[in-house]
Amino acid sequence: MPVYTCTTVKSTLSADIKASLAGEVTRIHSMINHVPGSYVNVVFHELAPDDVYTDGLPAQPLLINGWVRTGHPEAQSSQLVAEVAAAASRVTGIPARRVLVVIQNSPAHLAIEGGRVLPAPGEEEEWLRQQKDGV
Amino acid sequence: MPVYTCTTVKSTLSADIKASLAGEVTRIHSMINHVPGSYVNVVFHELAPDDVYTDGLPAQPLLINGWVRTGHPEAQSSQLVAEVAAAASRVTGIPARRVLVVIQNSPAHLAIEGGRVLPAPGEEEEWLRQQKDGV
Amino acid sequence: MPVYTCTTVKSTLSADIKASLAGEVTRIHSMINHVPGSYVNVVFHELAPDDVYTDGLPAQPLLINGWVRTGHPEAQSSQLVAEVAAAASRVTGIPARRVLVVIQNSPAHLAIEGGRVLPAPGEEEEWLRQQKDGV
Repeated sequence: MPVYTCTTVKSTLSADIKASLAGEVTRIHSMINHVPGSYVNVVFHELAPDDVYTDGLPAQPLLINGWVRTGHPEAQSSQLVAEVAAAASRVTGIPARRVLVVIQNSPAHLAIEGGRVLPAPGEEEEWLRQQKDGV
Repeated sequence: MPVYTCTTVKSTLSADIKASLAGEVTRIHSMINHVPGSYVNVVFHELAPDDVYTDGLPAQPLLINGWVRTGHPEAQSSQLVAEVAAAASRVTGIPARRVLVVIQNSPAHLAIEGGRVLPAPGEEEEWLRQQKDGV
Repeated sequence: MPVYTCTTVKSTLSADIKASLAGEVTRIHSMINHVPGSYVNVVFHELAPDDVYTDGLPAQPLLINGWVRTGHPEAQSSQLVAEVAAAASRVTGIPARRVLVVIQNSPAHLAIEGGRVLPAPGEEEEWLRQQKDGV
């Protein structure tokens, strides 16, 4: 269901670090937002040094943009963004001051996966049961 | 007005398939949301195999993220996401279980094209007429 | 805090033009939304010619997608999008009809930078003061 898009300058993250970060973000999202890991997507955009600017100058931030379904309780979303941001620094070694995590959302009914409209937050179990049963 | 961003692993889609998918998404959006095809943008991000993860493991999903103006009737938006998702599998041959389509939106007054603020949904005709007249 | 993502076909913008556009967007955002330039990120995605379509055909638009915190006054956001769009054409020489600027937003409490939840619009000064004091 969710998609996390990580943007860095090329060669900032090794293949191992990317796999580790993808694993951690998946684990965190799965635990907090009640979504099986098999529905969590993480992608990396690695850009040329002259394609990334902070303060108008070439820079090396780690920008993470997550999309989630609208309607998760606020405390849950706050925990999600905090844990993703902490994991980003912990896994990559990039200091927190260069890490920006942003969560965006839109209503579940504006997203389709596996040919089915996504469930609203709180209705995952029934949706997953039907998916499994091929209903 | 809209932008559809399709993300896959490199070499998943041939140039012909990309052109066909862009054409289908444009046709569908144009028909359902009353926007001339000349205002529909579709872009593809083709990433390295170690830049795309599902469930924390390298994977080959087709992720489509669309941006549209806020305020289209809900039934219309549901039809839009359903038809885009169906077209994605039909055109690419990628099974529905690996396809995620997400529509995001923001108010038309937060977008500018051709130097003019976009029209709210339902006000396209007048906007297009003025564009044509160079008003 | 904000991230501006500019998407073009490869070789549309020279390194100098990209740096100039990043500088202008940073200056404009900083001035209008009361954010120090050191918190403004601008990234460029340069895609292959067969990865960018308008009207279902290969095309050369300049697509700018900005993320900002929800809650800025409407007049301020309108000015922001207008000035970014004007700067895009002025700096790059790409005519306005090929430039689309879209601003998306989500609540400040769904974003973390420097290890801290972002301030709501209007509360930047206090947040920046605490950042500086290491509170």
